[in-house]
Amino acid sequence: MTTPLYHVGLDVGGSSMKGGVVDDTGRALSAVSLPTEAHRGQEFGLERMCETIRAAVKQAGLSMDRIASIGVATPGLMDIPAGVILDPPNLKPWQNVPVRRHIADVFGLPTAFQNDANAAAMGEFWAGAGRGVRSLGLFTLGTGVGGGIVLDGKVLEGRHSHGAELGHIIIDMSNPRRCGCGRLGCLEAYASANSVVLRTREALDKDGGRSALHRLKEELSARAIFDAAAKGDELAARIVEETALYLAVGATCLMHTIDPDMIVFGGGMIAAGPAFLERIRHHVRARAFPVPAERTQVRYAELGSDAGFIGAAACGRLLLDGAARTGARRAEG
Amino acid sequence: MTTPLYHVGLDVGGSSMKGGVVDDTGRALSAVSLPTEAHRGQEFGLERMCETIRAAVKQAGLSMDRIASIGVATPGLMDIPAGVILDPPNLKPWQNVPVRRHIADVFGLPTAFQNDANAAAMGEFWAGAGRGVRSLGLFTLGTGVGGGIVLDGKVLEGRHSHGAELGHIIIDMSNPRRCGCGRLGCLEAYASANSVVLRTREALDKDGGRSALHRLKEELSARAIFDAAAKGDELAARIVEETALYLAVGATCLMHTIDPDMIVFGGGMIAAGPAFLERIRHHVRARAFPVPAERTQVRYAELGSDAGFIGAAACGRLLLDGAARTGARRAEG
Repeated sequence: MTTPLYHVGLDVGGSSMKGGVVDDTGRALSAVSLPTEAHRGQEFGLERMCETIRAAVKQAGLSMDRIASIGVATPGLMDIPAGVILDPPNLKPWQNVPVRRHIADVFGLPTAFQNDANAAAMGEFWAGAGRGVRSLGLFTLGTGVGGGIVLDGKVLEGRHSHGAELGHIIIDMSNPRRCGCGRLGCLEAYASANSVVLRTREALDKDGGRSALHRLKEELSARAIFDAAAKGDELAARIVEETALYLAVGATCLMHTIDPDMIVFGGGMIAAGPAFLERIRHHVRARAFPVPAERTQVRYAELGSDAGFIGAAACGRLLLDGAARTGARRAEG
Repeated sequence: MTTPLYHVGLDVGGSSMKGGVVDDTGRALSAVSLPTEAHRGQEFGLERMCETIRAAVKQAGLSMDRIASIGVATPGLMDIPAGVILDPPNLKPWQNVPVRRHIADVFGLPTAFQNDANAAAMGEFWAGAGRGVRSLGLFTLGTGVGGGIVLDGKVLEGRHSHGAELGHIIIDMSNPRRCGCGRLGCLEAYASANSVVLRTREALDKDGGRSALHRLKEELSARAIFDAAAKGDELAARIVEETALYLAVGATCLMHTIDPDMIVFGGGMIAAGPAFLERIRHHVRARAFPVPAERTQVRYAELGSDAGFIGAAACGRLLLDGAARTGARRAEG
């Protein structure tokens, strides 16, 4: 007779953190968001993480003794094996925050620590678009372009916690754009939501007033651009088509490096819908070697903003052995 | 009391194949080359592989019963898990050759099958530049640009046997060169020995006769270009510097994807020597994120043309468990 055990995942972002309880199949039983308020300092931040975890357990109608493991995902710069956030640009003024040790000490549970985009990839792998595959690469298309890689069920963390910085593979040298990271020609400088807006503004400056997007000038957003393209705006359609090509080049580089089962695109920009995905697929087929071009699945993510905490929970769950996962016995932290 | 056992590695190339016996530390005890003569057909080719393996064992002064495993590396297109060469452009007219099964049947030994560039990466990992690291990416700079990745001691084969096709990551979109593979902007179209010569010819056409390389026109080679650069030829120096930059961009893309301990450059072009390597390192430091830029080792390969068979032997050895490897007992195929 065994009692099912559950896993808590927590995804800490620059403005809010989201936590939830996940069952052993990756299904979320609860989801709680609280503001991060990084400016209040890291002691406050650590306590806010604990608060979010407790609230998620409560919302799921459970008590803490039903929780078998915890996983926490945060943005970088970080030392993943050490469980420490080092110097995170999105969580000022935090520095050298021993996240994993703190959470493990407070709850007395096996606790995993992971990069947020890596965790999102793990979430999609376990319970989203990647269910059933052995390996995938995820591009998250938001303000920037993030990335995560799962190979044979494990996150590719890299030797210096810099695995899958997929927004910063270089796709152009002849006439490279300057990336937000300061470097030249990064994928993010072409295909993030911010870059889509910037490229559109540049095109509008040369357009002589034909595009309907001129009206939006100040409120121009990636969403508005994709909408205009769908309604037949020529300039917007060109921007969208080029964005699909850039993302296909990124996908091809990843396919020619790790050759995964699946490439997944996630983040706010996938609201663009199936037509955009089809254009990415078209360019992947044209750019990649025939065998991976034919066989690599190219999909949208399925878990939305839950991917991070579900993947974090997956990472915590992986700390347990098979028996502990299914509740046959309780693992010791 | 145990008797040391040995491993045979075989690296099959378009013009010749090289086999050798390797001890349990990766040291080569013999090295035998025979012409591949692919045009004589695949039955002949399989027998030639067996012949090379036997000759390598004989040259090492051993009998076959001292051999614990065999590893065979070949060029693609291939199905690595199936142990089959499918349709190899460099081994016409071979098709669907069941290499692993044939070799295993003939010798009755555990037999591994691997892509040749992957095997070279494994060789450098086990016994060359990468001794002691946990992960590396190898770029082989020859007629084309090949690649191999080893992560946590295992070759990254990819799900469609297309892992580490590093010559075909895309580094330029604005004004891309056409690659030998037919695609646009591949690293190989910039940084292979052939591409270095082609880029030099183009530059010479615009140079007005100043470069000493004009004299070589027909016999122009990557070697001659690197030599001229070392002697102060301006045009040659510019080509070499750009080549270092292209390779650094390739290395950076790999670092931002798999974040390995080490990037290794191998193949004929590394005869260019330490100054060229230093320029690659310089550009990697400028292009990669600070942490990997500082910590990722960038090195030349050490095993030369032995890397393939030594790595193939490493792959065979990995089929055995620890006891069988050291000769405590004989593994059964």
